[in-house]
Amino acid sequence: MTLALGLDVGGSTTRAVVVSASGSVLGSARGPGANPVVYGEAAVSTIAAAVRQAVADLRVEASVMGIAGGLGGFDGDFARMWASLGVPPPRLVSDVELAFVSGTASRTGSVLLAGTGAAASHVVDRVAVATADGHGWLLGDLGSGVWLGREAVRHLLTTIDQASSGGLLAARVLEGLFGEPRPMTRETASEAIHRVHAAPVPTLASLAPLVLAAAEHDPHAADILDRAAAHLQETLATVRPKDDDSPIVLAGGLLAQGSPLAARLPYPTITHAGDAARAAAWLALHDLSLDTPHPREVRT
Amino acid sequence: MTLALGLDVGGSTTRAVVVSASGSVLGSARGPGANPVVYGEAAVSTIAAAVRQAVADLRVEASVMGIAGGLGGFDGDFARMWASLGVPPPRLVSDVELAFVSGTASRTGSVLLAGTGAAASHVVDRVAVATADGHGWLLGDLGSGVWLGREAVRHLLTTIDQASSGGLLAARVLEGLFGEPRPMTRETASEAIHRVHAAPVPTLASLAPLVLAAAEHDPHAADILDRAAAHLQETLATVRPKDDDSPIVLAGGLLAQGSPLAARLPYPTITHAGDAARAAAWLALHDLSLDTPHPREVRT
Repeated sequence: MTLALGLDVGGSTTRAVVVSASGSVLGSARGPGANPVVYGEAAVSTIAAAVRQAVADLRVEASVMGIAGGLGGFDGDFARMWASLGVPPPRLVSDVELAFVSGTASRTGSVLLAGTGAAASHVVDRVAVATADGHGWLLGDLGSGVWLGREAVRHLLTTIDQASSGGLLAARVLEGLFGEPRPMTRETASEAIHRVHAAPVPTLASLAPLVLAAAEHDPHAADILDRAAAHLQETLATVRPKDDDSPIVLAGGLLAQGSPLAARLPYPTITHAGDAARAAAWLALHDLSLDTPHPREVRT
Repeated sequence: MTLALGLDVGGSTTRAVVVSASGSVLGSARGPGANPVVYGEAAVSTIAAAVRQAVADLRVEASVMGIAGGLGGFDGDFARMWASLGVPPPRLVSDVELAFVSGTASRTGSVLLAGTGAAASHVVDRVAVATADGHGWLLGDLGSGVWLGREAVRHLLTTIDQASSGGLLAARVLEGLFGEPRPMTRETASEAIHRVHAAPVPTLASLAPLVLAAAEHDPHAADILDRAAAHLQETLATVRPKDDDSPIVLAGGLLAQGSPLAARLPYPTITHAGDAARAAAWLALHDLSLDTPHPREVRT
């Protein structure tokens, strides 16, 4: 029985799965984030632990690892790790390419991602040939979770500037920042600004779900989502050929199925990203020239 | 002869002037920034040095100090300093109120400020009764120098995403970031992002003059200024009563006379902020019930 290992290494989660040629999952593991650009050498042992658990005493013949930004200069450490685990060194693909593959068996199309950050890529033969945004929260990531969280706080501050009592979104943001209701005063505004600056900027993304949840009831939340959707469309249009009818894969927590932000995107050929680790294993099986069905087509 | 001391204490410059009842400047000094919120106890001695130089052996009977954010808890140190210099403790006004007074003898009106940051206040009887924005570069300061600089870098990054060769603004931003021309490649984009993150965020404002200078020749620069002007108008509209015809004072380097950003503001009753230290001295003379002419009306 031919088996392949798929790895999805992210900033907050690492996943490993072992999949058979027929598409069955025979082993899996989940660990903390392990991007070597962020976590340095510790990433190697985090990934090793996940692989050891997923592979156990199985024998894998190929592997693919999805990882943003590559091995961070720890190529030697990784090589020794694969050798010691008896696993073939994985072919590397980017997180964006893997998100695309997880959503479609098509070789060509586009992927639009909105999670903590935001970016779009056009993909030809499963390789990202053009990428837009993904420039980080200071200079870009328009329409991302951090962007939504920042617009939500801005709405609160503007509401206080206007000496208005505010609606649902302003109240929710106050609760999100302070854990309790607060009066809509200038002191509250100053303290809100202080709290946002005291935390790492990416944690602004934790306010994004408040905007999604308030959109149906508060026109200000709906307006923020409208603007986020416009930004994301502009980002995708930067890389996607005009009148292309290839699939568009939506990825990232903000564009999950049923999300009111995803619902604002007018594309006719949308699919949602799926299980990235399984997609990596599927790619590895294809590397072995096996015609394993795409995870989207397998319901086990 | 009755004399008053005026102080304008900012984040990067401290100015002191001694003015006579007729409006003549009899002493002046300039020193580094001395905001106590930023510089702590060192602010007290910086201000003392400027006062000592401006006052010399003159005797002042009143003083006013414009300062953002107050004395930062160093009230006792300041009190001892004034006593040791033989200067009456100054009445404190905010930097925004002083900017308003520097531009007009009117007691009521609005002030719109765009420098490194951006904010607007409505002023009644020379006291700011409502303020909008001024929320800092992370959450606000829309239309400010940092905002313009960030939009300029965004334009560069988008140009590279589009695989376009770019126009005047993109070329100028590259030169501004690297000190020399660079190819429009993804490597350059990554390095540009890295350089922006390596410097304190407020230094993004150093790119703002490039946008002002390119606006006549590059439609992208003009578009950035249009959006900045729209943001500033929205900020002012938050605090200024509708159909008010009181004066609007424009303050901050980006709204200086002849600025293409100021030219985009459609207000009929604009005046520009003037010498803030002289305005402070003028307020101090008025505190003594002297009818000194407003600095705008004196040409010495």
